[in-house]
Amino acid sequence: MNILPFLQSNPLGREMTKAHLWDLANAAIKKNYRTGQTIINENDIAEVFYVVISGMVKMFKASPDGREQTLYIFGPGEIFGVCAIFSDMVFPAGASALEESVLLTFKGDLVKDIAHQDPTILFNMIRVLACRLKESMALVELLALKDIPQRVASFLLMSTIKKDCREEAAVDLMITRREMAKIIGSTPETLSRVLKKLAMENMIELKGRRLRVLNRNALNDISRASVMY
Amino acid sequence: MNILPFLQSNPLGREMTKAHLWDLANAAIKKNYRTGQTIINENDIAEVFYVVISGMVKMFKASPDGREQTLYIFGPGEIFGVCAIFSDMVFPAGASALEESVLLTFKGDLVKDIAHQDPTILFNMIRVLACRLKESMALVELLALKDIPQRVASFLLMSTIKKDCREEAAVDLMITRREMAKIIGSTPETLSRVLKKLAMENMIELKGRRLRVLNRNALNDISRASVMY
Repeated sequence: MNILPFLQSNPLGREMTKAHLWDLANAAIKKNYRTGQTIINENDIAEVFYVVISGMVKMFKASPDGREQTLYIFGPGEIFGVCAIFSDMVFPAGASALEESVLLTFKGDLVKDIAHQDPTILFNMIRVLACRLKESMALVELLALKDIPQRVASFLLMSTIKKDCREEAAVDLMITRREMAKIIGSTPETLSRVLKKLAMENMIELKGRRLRVLNRNALNDISRASVMY
Repeated sequence: MNILPFLQSNPLGREMTKAHLWDLANAAIKKNYRTGQTIINENDIAEVFYVVISGMVKMFKASPDGREQTLYIFGPGEIFGVCAIFSDMVFPAGASALEESVLLTFKGDLVKDIAHQDPTILFNMIRVLACRLKESMALVELLALKDIPQRVASFLLMSTIKKDCREEAAVDLMITRREMAKIIGSTPETLSRVLKKLAMENMIELKGRRLRVLNRNALNDISRASVMY
């Protein structure tokens, strides 16, 4: 795989000069992870940040009694661990591979060097962080203020506003029902019931593991309605 | 009030040159807000970002049926609305003044101009966003995985790691019990019961509205324990 064009079309590389994209590409280290493999533990010192080339990564908080709350699921092109550009920050959550994944890692210091010549990369990182923060706030809202059907609709809508905070009309979700249930704080059974109902009303399309959002507006109505769906 | 020394000691101004601090100070517009006054609505286009001079601001998500989840409480020195440096982003949550507050506002464009001469301000903003994200993840964890006593302990610990992500040994919380209950998803009555118990065991000190954290380690044990406190 050629890293340069990958970075060029990535939110991280947006509007960067070719010379600085080369600096990034040359310093990137590719790493492979098996399904379930730990990428980083909560409170590890963050030394590198990550860009997903292929596969899927989850970021999560775990409780001492073994329960888990998924915070994010990152697919190809997504960036995480940006706090690595500071030498005194620790990773705020754990991350592991949901399936076989290939990641690019970049040392935090590299960004500093590039940024002092051209700050574009920092603007790109701020954009990524602002989107993460927005997703995080939406997750808090989902857990605190919404019932399960609203949560499902909200989660599906959030999934169509990923990478670079741009809205996509339709999106394919490839995560398992089990992972999705973990995010919205529901059981796989309840989740399946709600998904089937949404599919019957043509708001989504279900095909095995693949889930496709078809009607954002209708999902938006459910996500906002306080009446039971 | 002299804005320059205020900005100099603020996370936003960290390690910035005096010349650029002057640029910031000269462009700042001071605004006063009454208790309860709206500062910005969710989905408003973000044109300025804010630094709290005095008072207290809450950022929140509201549901159509009038329920509310507080996301953050910002006191003097804290920064919010950083997404204003991008012209295409909307504010991800509402913000209003919890008490009479004075805020400095800065146009997003200003940061771009300064950053192209010296990227320090962007590093400072990334640090602020990384801390917000960390707090946001902690709030998700709190709501999803913790019982009420654990939530209280976690919230108090989170409050000692504010501004600039630095840990403070003790911290004075000046928010009302009602606001605190709103953050942790509890009732003021239950919250008061837990706080009294913590005070009796000398983990915190209660004095009217003022709450002081005395023993971080003990709170940490409660926050992590899955046994009922």
